[in-house]
Amino acid sequence: MSANQQLLNNIAIVLLNPKYPENIGSAARAAWNMGITRIIVVGDEYPDHTRMAKLATHNAAHLLDKMEFHENLPDALAPFSQVIGTTARRGRQRIPAKSPRIIVENILPLLPENEVAFLFGPEDSGLSSEALQYCQQTSAIPTADFSSLNLAQAVSIHCYEIFHAVVHEQKEPLPAYKIANSRETENMFHHLDRTLSHIDFLKEKSHDYYMRNIRQFLGKVQMSAKETSLVRGICRQFIANAKQK
Amino acid sequence: MSANQQLLNNIAIVLLNPKYPENIGSAARAAWNMGITRIIVVGDEYPDHTRMAKLATHNAAHLLDKMEFHENLPDALAPFSQVIGTTARRGRQRIPAKSPRIIVENILPLLPENEVAFLFGPEDSGLSSEALQYCQQTSAIPTADFSSLNLAQAVSIHCYEIFHAVVHEQKEPLPAYKIANSRETENMFHHLDRTLSHIDFLKEKSHDYYMRNIRQFLGKVQMSAKETSLVRGICRQFIANAKQK
Repeated sequence: MSANQQLLNNIAIVLLNPKYPENIGSAARAAWNMGITRIIVVGDEYPDHTRMAKLATHNAAHLLDKMEFHENLPDALAPFSQVIGTTARRGRQRIPAKSPRIIVENILPLLPENEVAFLFGPEDSGLSSEALQYCQQTSAIPTADFSSLNLAQAVSIHCYEIFHAVVHEQKEPLPAYKIANSRETENMFHHLDRTLSHIDFLKEKSHDYYMRNIRQFLGKVQMSAKETSLVRGICRQFIANAKQK
Repeated sequence: MSANQQLLNNIAIVLLNPKYPENIGSAARAAWNMGITRIIVVGDEYPDHTRMAKLATHNAAHLLDKMEFHENLPDALAPFSQVIGTTARRGRQRIPAKSPRIIVENILPLLPENEVAFLFGPEDSGLSSEALQYCQQTSAIPTADFSSLNLAQAVSIHCYEIFHAVVHEQKEPLPAYKIANSRETENMFHHLDRTLSHIDFLKEKSHDYYMRNIRQFLGKVQMSAKETSLVRGICRQFIANAKQK
């Protein structure tokens, strides 16, 4: 195994509310083919193992054994410093989607020191705007008009692009730098939210609108954990110095 | 539809002896998602339509209606000027396999004026050496060790690379030049075979060995139809001037 192949351990496929356990199995098999072994499922209940295993086939069965399960998305995403939302809809969402090839180029420098999640929505509806708020980038596979890629195909093409760039193109070992994970940035956003609400910058009507803009703006900056602490320190100071209510 | 998207009409997915009609359906759906609509099946009997249609889904059902069926491979490949054999085995075959991305780069300049086939073998065994003889290039998808891509996934990733290069990267309209099709090169090989046997260069024991080498060598040259005629003219002349037997 090359040094770069080990970087694949820093990548996870996160499936949000998949409807059919079979699709989890197919997705696991597709990921395994490209050296990616970490599958995380977020849903209301643990998916049926037999139905998953049938399509994982014996090749990828061990991925299901160590599969992570979470009941809510923020918990599932906590360790990840970069979350890529995958979507079929191009041009309509707030963060313009890029092709998987460009996305993988973007995350390459992060891989040695950070964990990266590729987030896939339910088969029928895809990722909601709420789920997309946790994503720093969105990826859309270029397809013909009126196409309909299934979940396993979307996972397969993303994992193929990852393997191609990380292992097949055999780049030199990548330089390393570490950025904040989702838990740390979410804590910062909560702190900002509290602070901006406290000083009445965020009001009930415009609260979501402004917070979305702030999340987007700061999402583009790859902040270190230290920088998120700095922002929180500033928030604390603001609150301490604000008028009593 | 962009000018380049129309070039996808010059590409066909050829499935040699697929075992399960369902996989033809999945492959058709994968091709359709990437704007490729020409499916050719080579086999002993016409595959069960209901079983194919189930996995093609309504999106790609019309591809099955116009699907071509042949009982032998040379007939199926006749119109194609370039045949790409797809294989999971790397490094063991006579023509070293390239990645689909490199293959697609190679065929791009051919697309405006020539038809190109991507040939996929049966699910379990892949393409035989005999089938690989009709291929000018071989393509292997980079994967992790011990992976097992299914037929539809292999078709999907090849079609994705094609769509990405031909349509998504929106190249300028490609310059055009026409090369010989498989019928024309096969006729030339038959003529060469006859001629070389006539002058006792090809003997029973070494016949296959030398013909394979000649096919490989000439397969690398992208000959025009006129050049294949030239070779045949030379063959004719050789035979006319050879000693009577």
